[in-house]
Amino acid sequence: MMKYNKITSEILAELVAIAGPNNVLSDCDRMEHYSHDETSVEEYGHMPEAVVTAESTEQIAAIMKLASRNLIPVTPRGAGSGLSGGAIPLYGGIVLSVEKMNKVLEIDEKNLTVTAEAGIITNELNEQLVSQGLFFAGYPMSLETCFLGGNIAENAGGGKAVKYGVTGRYVLGLEVVTPQGQILSLGGKVTKDVSGYDLKQLYIGSEGTLGIITKATIRLLGLPKAKSDLLVPFKTAQEAIDVVPLIMKAGIIPTSIEFMDRTSIEMSCSYLNETLPLEGVGAMLLLELDGNNENQVEQDMISVGDLCEANGAMEVYIAEDKNTQERIWSVRRNIAEALKVYSPVQSLEDVVVPINSIALVLPELTRLSEKYGVTIPCYGHAGDGNLHATVVKDPETSQERWHEIEEQLLSELYAFIVGELGGKISGEHGIGLKRKKYLSELMSADEYALSCSLKKAFDPLMIMNPGKILVEEI
Amino acid sequence: MMKYNKITSEILAELVAIAGPNNVLSDCDRMEHYSHDETSVEEYGHMPEAVVTAESTEQIAAIMKLASRNLIPVTPRGAGSGLSGGAIPLYGGIVLSVEKMNKVLEIDEKNLTVTAEAGIITNELNEQLVSQGLFFAGYPMSLETCFLGGNIAENAGGGKAVKYGVTGRYVLGLEVVTPQGQILSLGGKVTKDVSGYDLKQLYIGSEGTLGIITKATIRLLGLPKAKSDLLVPFKTAQEAIDVVPLIMKAGIIPTSIEFMDRTSIEMSCSYLNETLPLEGVGAMLLLELDGNNENQVEQDMISVGDLCEANGAMEVYIAEDKNTQERIWSVRRNIAEALKVYSPVQSLEDVVVPINSIALVLPELTRLSEKYGVTIPCYGHAGDGNLHATVVKDPETSQERWHEIEEQLLSELYAFIVGELGGKISGEHGIGLKRKKYLSELMSADEYALSCSLKKAFDPLMIMNPGKILVEEI
Repeated sequence: MMKYNKITSEILAELVAIAGPNNVLSDCDRMEHYSHDETSVEEYGHMPEAVVTAESTEQIAAIMKLASRNLIPVTPRGAGSGLSGGAIPLYGGIVLSVEKMNKVLEIDEKNLTVTAEAGIITNELNEQLVSQGLFFAGYPMSLETCFLGGNIAENAGGGKAVKYGVTGRYVLGLEVVTPQGQILSLGGKVTKDVSGYDLKQLYIGSEGTLGIITKATIRLLGLPKAKSDLLVPFKTAQEAIDVVPLIMKAGIIPTSIEFMDRTSIEMSCSYLNETLPLEGVGAMLLLELDGNNENQVEQDMISVGDLCEANGAMEVYIAEDKNTQERIWSVRRNIAEALKVYSPVQSLEDVVVPINSIALVLPELTRLSEKYGVTIPCYGHAGDGNLHATVVKDPETSQERWHEIEEQLLSELYAFIVGELGGKISGEHGIGLKRKKYLSELMSADEYALSCSLKKAFDPLMIMNPGKILVEEI
Repeated sequence: MMKYNKITSEILAELVAIAGPNNVLSDCDRMEHYSHDETSVEEYGHMPEAVVTAESTEQIAAIMKLASRNLIPVTPRGAGSGLSGGAIPLYGGIVLSVEKMNKVLEIDEKNLTVTAEAGIITNELNEQLVSQGLFFAGYPMSLETCFLGGNIAENAGGGKAVKYGVTGRYVLGLEVVTPQGQILSLGGKVTKDVSGYDLKQLYIGSEGTLGIITKATIRLLGLPKAKSDLLVPFKTAQEAIDVVPLIMKAGIIPTSIEFMDRTSIEMSCSYLNETLPLEGVGAMLLLELDGNNENQVEQDMISVGDLCEANGAMEVYIAEDKNTQERIWSVRRNIAEALKVYSPVQSLEDVVVPINSIALVLPELTRLSEKYGVTIPCYGHAGDGNLHATVVKDPETSQERWHEIEEQLLSELYAFIVGELGGKISGEHGIGLKRKKYLSELMSADEYALSCSLKKAFDPLMIMNPGKILVEEI
């Protein structure tokens, strides 16, 4: 039973008093942008009653106090590049955007950390670090648009996770505003810490349901001196994916092993006006190797290339200059966008399985594709066991029929991933709105109940990004 | 107000029915061993009313249900090698030992994981992995005695943390029994997972206050092919510690950078009947470098050696053969034990600071040592900013006076570490019983209150290892 209050003109005036008139929106036209993320608007979009683009942590704290007093739901928002509906204001209320909190506050070269506000674009953060020879290694593929705060809220993974791990590994400190409007400063610049419960770690990946991340201190690494990329075509998708666990077991740790099936590559190339040699190609692997020792990187590159050739690779293309590397990675990075253009109604999936089981995912996708008569292009972070199967709606299928198909197909896919392969339904996109029904079905009742207790301990009024992760309501 | 019930003969009979007569102790003589950990018995020891050495997760679940029904406190226990009183049954009740749950359940070479019961000794786990060329990299210095479950409960760090990070980084899956006796299976064999709140991560480092860890799935790495150790004496402790941040900024990531002051080395050498060249030596650094490329390790070793020599090192000893390496590391590993023999009443500290501030810790220790007239030998994981200052009671100081000194000195030290250097009071030993008063004073009131809410959400009856981390009682 929903019992949230509506935003009255008095509350709107209070928001203006807190954040200033330029930071409060309430007209539908300007709020439309804040009604959705990168999931389908038709399926998941919902209008807020007000949007506040806060300029400081203190403003956010004041807004949360106001929302608590008045029982108004608050949905935090980063770049809106999320893929599970996490930033959508399901119950209206306030969308609290951190887009104006986008400053780098400190680059500490002596401790190898950077402290920045949550609204900085990930790529801009890394650009500011290049001249110091440093970088934040835990960034996701959407680095050109996504915000640091969103990466942390989702515990995003990305192109370099095979070697460097995901966002969470690099978060040393967090500033967070609680649902009650308290400002917490968690962690710091220390690399080890067992001084009490690790609330910082709990906030990482909690999808804005326990509080709003306002600042973060990130551990930096030195930029590797050598880098090499391999593009490796195979006749079939299965042959390509079969090689992945072989590479992982060969004692080499690549920076990334990306998988792209033919449809994904074709769509992205056509979207980018790019050409790649595709005759007879069923899928490609894109591998990156990096390190500080050029010879070592070269040696590893040869070993990986040989391994691919011994296991069905049609060719091994090596990209050692920056331009070619950027061209190839651009194809990979733009697949999601290209597939959206190709088919705006779709379900972009994010299943993750133990690495040795990754080859078993493709036959199941083929089976489901045939059973439901839908196309399922597939690509993703194969080296992490993490695949972005994209279930695509045929233009002639009705919206109603599509919903049935989507629900049944995902239920079957998730049951297979979790039940048969010991995998998880999301590796990096999160549960959000999109997967909460499935999570409630697939998670053990005890873990689910404990997750609900945890949420209530942090947010007893249930005003903080309600309707995400868990199905429980106020 | 303590309101726990006592263990009656009926409850004892139920414990015997659950775990078998050989697994339930209630006579004081045999329970004495379970009344303390590696902190001082006089100061922190407390007798349990019963000790159960469970043989299965199901037995532990049944015991937690029994304890919940009867409001009996339960204190989980690993090897008892903890250094903050975490395994001490402050309120009596049941000590639940996992010492008989010590099996390796599965070595999965294809997914590079091992699954084992919580009671396995860390070193035995690694010994079982050697023949596969694999290892668990997140282990602590007490690896010869400590249990896997305890490492996870404390999020232990250790000798290799500079390069490899602490225990938590390697925990992919956990089986946990909740205070209510539910069995949770968290995580799995996947390397990325954002499917709901990360309860697994929250259990890591929660010191047995949220549940009992019964099994873990650990991510393994390939054993590095090359390894080299450097022992580097300096005239003064300050000169040695000053070099540490310089090494960390030189673009080389050593496996470990350990610091040992003269007293620590002398005590350990005398304890082990070992000799090291100590003429004019004020402190030593012990550095390890490893990798798969022998030339690279060699090169890095030379760079680090040169850097030390350019910054006041008296000598650089290189230990490349296994025997010499083991001898040196044995001196480092046995410092804690040796200092205990030298002075059984002491406070073994574990402060951690940002790496660039580590040089500032020593002058403060000297100041406190002079102010309070106590000796403070110091050693530890300098490369992590983590130092084990050991405040030692003089034999002629009375126990009462010692308590005053300890409390005042620690208050001053912690205030400096947290307030002046942005550090934390424990990097790896945890809060337990020993530091809970200080945590309650140094943590922000809001974070502290949230930590209490979290504890209550998991353990509403407050029966799970009560009196640890937080000062709040039932």
